[in-house]
Amino acid sequence: MKDTIPTITTGAISASGKVYATGDIHEIRVPMREIAISNEAPLTVYDSSGPYTDPAATIDIAEGLVEVRGGWLQSRGVIEEYEGRTVTDADNGFATGARLTPAFPNQRRPLRAVGDRAVTQLAYARAGIITPEMEFVAIRENEGRSTAGARDGEAFGAELPDLVTPEFVRAEIAAGRAIIPANINHRELEPMIIGRNFKVKINANIGNSAVTSSMEEEVEKMVWAIRWGADTVMDLSTGRNIHNIRDWIIRNAPVPIGTVPLYQALEKVGGVAEDLTWEIFRDTLIEQAEQGVDYFTIHAGVRLHMIPMTAKRVTGIVSRGGSIMAKWCLHHHRESFLYEHFDEICDICRRYDVSFSLGDGLRPGSIADANDEAQFAELRTLGELTKIAWAKDCQVMIEGPGHVPMHKIKANMEEQIKHCHEAPFYTLGPLTTDIAPGYDHITSAIGAAMIGWFGTAMLCYVTPKEHLGLPDRDDVKTGVITYKLAAHAADLAKGHPGAQRRDDALSRARFEFRWEDQFNLGLDPDTAREMHDETMPAEAHKVAHFCSMCGPKFCSMRISHDIRAEAEKQQGMAAMAEKFRETGALYVPAAPAE
Amino acid sequence: MKDTIPTITTGAISASGKVYATGDIHEIRVPMREIAISNEAPLTVYDSSGPYTDPAATIDIAEGLVEVRGGWLQSRGVIEEYEGRTVTDADNGFATGARLTPAFPNQRRPLRAVGDRAVTQLAYARAGIITPEMEFVAIRENEGRSTAGARDGEAFGAELPDLVTPEFVRAEIAAGRAIIPANINHRELEPMIIGRNFKVKINANIGNSAVTSSMEEEVEKMVWAIRWGADTVMDLSTGRNIHNIRDWIIRNAPVPIGTVPLYQALEKVGGVAEDLTWEIFRDTLIEQAEQGVDYFTIHAGVRLHMIPMTAKRVTGIVSRGGSIMAKWCLHHHRESFLYEHFDEICDICRRYDVSFSLGDGLRPGSIADANDEAQFAELRTLGELTKIAWAKDCQVMIEGPGHVPMHKIKANMEEQIKHCHEAPFYTLGPLTTDIAPGYDHITSAIGAAMIGWFGTAMLCYVTPKEHLGLPDRDDVKTGVITYKLAAHAADLAKGHPGAQRRDDALSRARFEFRWEDQFNLGLDPDTAREMHDETMPAEAHKVAHFCSMCGPKFCSMRISHDIRAEAEKQQGMAAMAEKFRETGALYVPAAPAE
Repeated sequence: MKDTIPTITTGAISASGKVYATGDIHEIRVPMREIAISNEAPLTVYDSSGPYTDPAATIDIAEGLVEVRGGWLQSRGVIEEYEGRTVTDADNGFATGARLTPAFPNQRRPLRAVGDRAVTQLAYARAGIITPEMEFVAIRENEGRSTAGARDGEAFGAELPDLVTPEFVRAEIAAGRAIIPANINHRELEPMIIGRNFKVKINANIGNSAVTSSMEEEVEKMVWAIRWGADTVMDLSTGRNIHNIRDWIIRNAPVPIGTVPLYQALEKVGGVAEDLTWEIFRDTLIEQAEQGVDYFTIHAGVRLHMIPMTAKRVTGIVSRGGSIMAKWCLHHHRESFLYEHFDEICDICRRYDVSFSLGDGLRPGSIADANDEAQFAELRTLGELTKIAWAKDCQVMIEGPGHVPMHKIKANMEEQIKHCHEAPFYTLGPLTTDIAPGYDHITSAIGAAMIGWFGTAMLCYVTPKEHLGLPDRDDVKTGVITYKLAAHAADLAKGHPGAQRRDDALSRARFEFRWEDQFNLGLDPDTAREMHDETMPAEAHKVAHFCSMCGPKFCSMRISHDIRAEAEKQQGMAAMAEKFRETGALYVPAAPAE
Repeated sequence: MKDTIPTITTGAISASGKVYATGDIHEIRVPMREIAISNEAPLTVYDSSGPYTDPAATIDIAEGLVEVRGGWLQSRGVIEEYEGRTVTDADNGFATGARLTPAFPNQRRPLRAVGDRAVTQLAYARAGIITPEMEFVAIRENEGRSTAGARDGEAFGAELPDLVTPEFVRAEIAAGRAIIPANINHRELEPMIIGRNFKVKINANIGNSAVTSSMEEEVEKMVWAIRWGADTVMDLSTGRNIHNIRDWIIRNAPVPIGTVPLYQALEKVGGVAEDLTWEIFRDTLIEQAEQGVDYFTIHAGVRLHMIPMTAKRVTGIVSRGGSIMAKWCLHHHRESFLYEHFDEICDICRRYDVSFSLGDGLRPGSIADANDEAQFAELRTLGELTKIAWAKDCQVMIEGPGHVPMHKIKANMEEQIKHCHEAPFYTLGPLTTDIAPGYDHITSAIGAAMIGWFGTAMLCYVTPKEHLGLPDRDDVKTGVITYKLAAHAADLAKGHPGAQRRDDALSRARFEFRWEDQFNLGLDPDTAREMHDETMPAEAHKVAHFCSMCGPKFCSMRISHDIRAEAEKQQGMAAMAEKFRETGALYVPAAPAE
């Protein structure tokens, strides 16, 4: 497999090194990124990119990543290894021969809880146990800080501590306000936390785009997305080879992987929604749980009586899962099997610690449909399901819209908190207008930043290709960076105690004409450098005390430096402030020249 | 000059035709764009693009546009033609010979008010007169509507009428809540209005990028920006040929042109800020007023005692105009000549109807500096200056920041309304984080959409190259479209009675798989079509009842149609809603199959 390695993007991000913090309670190594700055101490930032950006790591996708959680899991006692389900042709969409993506070579037997035990982070948190995962995310959230930075945000009820402690993490999980999606079969995972009182996270979607996509391509999509900051990745593949490709992805994924199991179940019945059965769906859940999927989107909130509520909508049902279930319900004139068997679904998830992402199958797909009866009826059902899942010790987050104009965004957050009992919210955008196809990463970043500020814990990215086609590599990066900046804007506005450090470091670099530092402290150093070089390519210009926009004569920052120097020379700025302060007369006599 | 024409972009926007509405009071032709839709009535939208998108118009930039306002102005009586100022070498930065951009060939004598009369829209509005400009913008704002559409926004005190009448425009201008930037020497102008109770507008900046830029290039920059939706254009050129190029731009501009006269004045003194004098500045104002500049950014709010307030800032003074004036003040130890001579500046502006854009020279350039003492001290001074300008019948808008985290944006709007007496606000972004150089069109679109919602009347665009270099043609388009979508999101959230028509039309097209309609109703049909064709290039696919993202099996919209058809076949959705409604029990018995 060695010859496939070059297609995976590895290597450090510009001017960055990998550092690892250690735990006090558990033997853990928590990765962070340290950005070198020319005349300041390095800045330590959150790092979702995994070993791929560590020059010391050896990457071989046929081996998979190191199983960092292996030891942690064994220590739990109630976990057993077992034979596992047999992979069938249907799991791979009946691909055979040359069309069959090879199975991941380094197979191992799956783990599950003994009997009906719950091995979820929620179960441990409720039992007062701080797991290695909890300590890991506590250290990770602090980004190397030992003190709180500037904070003056408005948190709308979120309570962000100065520093996150393992006990704080445990308490938040126990309360259902946060989740650590961490299937016990995803031993390669570097745990992360999703909750309103932590940094706002982002998800990127990937999926096989063609019949012939290779495992390297699919792994690379994931690696590329996390390199730029995706905190979790959803594999939305359909069609052939879906099982084998998922194996390749998870074995090489340091971030939680989410799926919509319904998509694979539909493949198994040849794409005919009404042929879906609980048995096929149930088998698919076990298949994916054994592989290590960390969270499942389950559209159990779409109920039969809600479907007619969508009849007068401008865009009907726009969730794939929602429309599949609606079709099933209508055809059979029955309540959905997801809803009716929800407690059995919980019984599966608790044995592997697969978190729920309760899908919003009736989310609005247009401005006209935002916040309507169907949407909020489903949201209330998701709240009921949350309680059932919690009773089974399952971790839960709730999916949200969609397309929502700005003035209706806050109600979405408020209704979600109220009806879903503070379970974390995970939204797609929302898009704040429908009129900009090609720019929906932006129409949605506006909504995402706002709803993140109001309390949404994770933002599902939207790429420029939304509504138009499949995103390519550049689109994925654009989507990820756009959502990173939206999530960061939300952190700043919430008053996250560590957020402003990076803004300040970058702005100091900007003011001091440290161009390289400015690039390196940004979310996308490569693009910033490239754009600068288009106008001023010479190396000498990167230390110039002006920039390509205004030139030296009109450079406000250069003049600002002159002003500061002149003022200091004369008598100090503070004394001058006194001297020239006056009290409201519009035209004051000019101060005498010195 | 005929050989230069091909460099100017002309021709209709995709699927669009030009229509003209006529006035009831005055003889006016108000341009609008009509987008053809395959199975609906065409949608009429606001059109900033001028005659360039009218196939019936003849474009020759050496002739300039038709002087649509010629007749209107003569009817005012108190306007005189006069010899005008003589153009000097200094006006063109001492460019000579081959380096001198040719003067615009079709020169004419300038107009001004007789004596000290005010010929501003504000003066007429106060006198109870509805000018042609007022009727023009009233018709334009309605976009062909005769009724109000869906509206349920939160307007934060803005009062958007169902339909804009000429009298409403007059009253808003008389109250100072709106301006029509319309220099009497800009006879080619298609008037537009800037105010909180009208559609949110956007501005694009252009400027000569090199010593050798030609007049065609500069005119094309303006034409390109308005083609995609810029409502006004600021010419921020510096260096050589600044006078002649401005002539070429204004003679070909159907939108208001704004400038920062200080930039040209600084060129005239060789770039040495301390050598600036009132006399040179005054002469520059008259020079540009005679050319037809519609609004001047004047940084008269930067006062001596405020400069030390910027000493502890992370990024000092980031406004070019602000830093130039601060340097002047500090060097001379005097109050700024802009502040001291502000009433004389008003006397000039009222004779030509040049509107003020009172510059925020102390705007924050980083998250750390947002909403600080210096910024708000200047804002209060801008409020004082507003009253002076109004006393002279001058039209005023106020410039705003800059870099502001989301939680501090609303205060900016509230303070501006309070201290500047409801004069229109015109903001740059604001950027909601500093950490994404290369993506600042997006960091700022978030802030722009929000502050537009809160009441900002015009949003100054930011391109992806902000902080890094000079925008190229693609960057300008990206910036304009990004700001159009932000302004539209603001209109929707404010509850503009016409805004949602376009979202609804596009969403209907999306739901009905009318791909071409979906592209054409978007802000950028070309990019949307191109992105779609990357994945599904065949013409046949543009009528396919699914799209490139999910394929036919997983197409939620296709399934949604099936659901609707099935439900209608059975018994109608409404009856079904009754049948399947239930009242809270979690597991209901399945409905009997029919």
